[in-house]
Amino acid sequence: MKNILLRFLNILTVPVLLITLSCSTNQNKNSEFGLVIHGGAGNIIKGSLTPEQEKEYETKLQEALETGYKILIAGGSSIDAVEKVINILEDSPLFNAGKGAVFTANGINELDASIMDGRTLNAGAAARLTHVKNPISLVRKIMDISEHVMLVGEGAEIFAEQNEIKLVDSSYFFTEKRWNDLQKIQIEKKAINKDQANFNSYNPDYKFGTVGCTALDKNGNLAAGTSTGGMTNKKFGRVGDSPIIGAGTYANNNSCAVSATGHGEFFIRGTIAHDISALIEYKGMSLNDAADEVINKKLSSMGGTGGIIAIDKKGNIAMPFNTAGMFRAFVLDDGKFVVKIYKE
Amino acid sequence: MKNILLRFLNILTVPVLLITLSCSTNQNKNSEFGLVIHGGAGNIIKGSLTPEQEKEYETKLQEALETGYKILIAGGSSIDAVEKVINILEDSPLFNAGKGAVFTANGINELDASIMDGRTLNAGAAARLTHVKNPISLVRKIMDISEHVMLVGEGAEIFAEQNEIKLVDSSYFFTEKRWNDLQKIQIEKKAINKDQANFNSYNPDYKFGTVGCTALDKNGNLAAGTSTGGMTNKKFGRVGDSPIIGAGTYANNNSCAVSATGHGEFFIRGTIAHDISALIEYKGMSLNDAADEVINKKLSSMGGTGGIIAIDKKGNIAMPFNTAGMFRAFVLDDGKFVVKIYKE
Repeated sequence: MKNILLRFLNILTVPVLLITLSCSTNQNKNSEFGLVIHGGAGNIIKGSLTPEQEKEYETKLQEALETGYKILIAGGSSIDAVEKVINILEDSPLFNAGKGAVFTANGINELDASIMDGRTLNAGAAARLTHVKNPISLVRKIMDISEHVMLVGEGAEIFAEQNEIKLVDSSYFFTEKRWNDLQKIQIEKKAINKDQANFNSYNPDYKFGTVGCTALDKNGNLAAGTSTGGMTNKKFGRVGDSPIIGAGTYANNNSCAVSATGHGEFFIRGTIAHDISALIEYKGMSLNDAADEVINKKLSSMGGTGGIIAIDKKGNIAMPFNTAGMFRAFVLDDGKFVVKIYKE
Repeated sequence: MKNILLRFLNILTVPVLLITLSCSTNQNKNSEFGLVIHGGAGNIIKGSLTPEQEKEYETKLQEALETGYKILIAGGSSIDAVEKVINILEDSPLFNAGKGAVFTANGINELDASIMDGRTLNAGAAARLTHVKNPISLVRKIMDISEHVMLVGEGAEIFAEQNEIKLVDSSYFFTEKRWNDLQKIQIEKKAINKDQANFNSYNPDYKFGTVGCTALDKNGNLAAGTSTGGMTNKKFGRVGDSPIIGAGTYANNNSCAVSATGHGEFFIRGTIAHDISALIEYKGMSLNDAADEVINKKLSSMGGTGGIIAIDKKGNIAMPFNTAGMFRAFVLDDGKFVVKIYKE
């Protein structure tokens, strides 16, 4: 009887093992090219979105993926894919970037973005934009034709105007949802008499929505980009990690491409994006282990919340986050589109 | 005869070796505490400064060192030493920070700074300040009492005003020398019809003067800070590496504290300060080897110019630069003050 049971178990072992391998290598097999995107991490628990809202997010993430996939499968560059994918997300009111940017304490929208080319280590970044429709296209232009990396405020918009980057009236960024978020958070703040003195005073229920994309193209070049409206009710010209090369965005053909989303202050202090790259390049870690180490250990132990998406030079991907959910999606050279929202 | 010569050489060997060891360990012996400062790297060749100018720089660097040394030997914190030392350099018109800040293309002064505490990884940063007398004291305040890391522009100055950081009229930053530098560079630019399209178009004769300080205190805590007026004739709200945590400034008790000076765009693209830290922490390099690798190999191969100062948790220091000179100085627990300008 025991022997029969053992033989039965042996027969079972092969397919079970295959299934297990298939699951664990799903996000870690080598791929000739690939694309990973995020639309923000936060307290997105099951039930907090209606089925209709879920569908809206999934459809837009899928559309963004398809745009990038078409570029990459046709032999286009990772940097082009990153820009065009983020354009889709910026133009949607669903995400806290471009059209859907949150409001500052003064009731305006201030947008930040950055982009990096892993082949050349060239980079572009901009912060405190109030009229640039697609910040990721501005930072691409800064990277491509300027001698500078980072431009801030009105100066950045003068550069944009001189270089045919689309400017819009600030009313373009008004959305009722984000306006209501501002009113709500300002009432909450008054109620708890919250001051500026403590990192931990940060409201963990705040929903982020920064967008980002990392890509590997058929020529083995990596690129990363991030675009955001920052933090609802931000004051004092606050700038987060999204426009900071090494914090919110980093790409290096020697290691990986990373885009972050979350409580930006912690991502700056941890130089999160470059730290993942350094663990791979200098410590020989896999992308998965490096991303896990930085997000689930280092960031969490600092009290920071958020996540990253990343792809390495072999087409391995990682999407760790320490919040309840993160809008995320990826496609590799098998052409299989995967879109996810909640923790699994 | 040959034997006598050999015996003579043998006798010589011992003191020669001792002298050599003494030289090479001068900057690399362990020290209970220590302080390293810079006042900018650039094309500072012997003969470009008069003996009187040399003396002026040396005296001011010595004064700054003494200020920090007094704090550290009395058991004060590295973060206090960094702030107070940089205050001295900011208040001097000799350096491109605070009082001696360079002019933008629009003829104003825009100051940037950042500070980081290696014990907590807390950090503060600010950019595009036009009225803050001591930017390093503002970023210290941002780090200490704000929930944010980086504040930019007028918002940062409103925060400064609300928190008793000294504001001055913008005329405070006028110095004839810097004004003349602006006129000169604008004429040169016109002459060569320089556009914005090429990193290499950057004038290698440009003299930087960013200031920075890194310190180790008796409790084993590291700190770093950097303050600058940026680049003469900068346009479009350009921000360099000085206010970028991980690029111009980084401190981590697990590795080292770094402050950078040079052509900021390359320091951002290379995430220079964090890269040195990562080579120590993840690759087990010595501070000297890591700093040399990043400045003399990586930065140089990108075409970037400048240097860094650094101190590690054991009191080893490094001051590499790939320009003709760098205003630099250090003191360790032996109380010996060393001030240098030119390459040796």
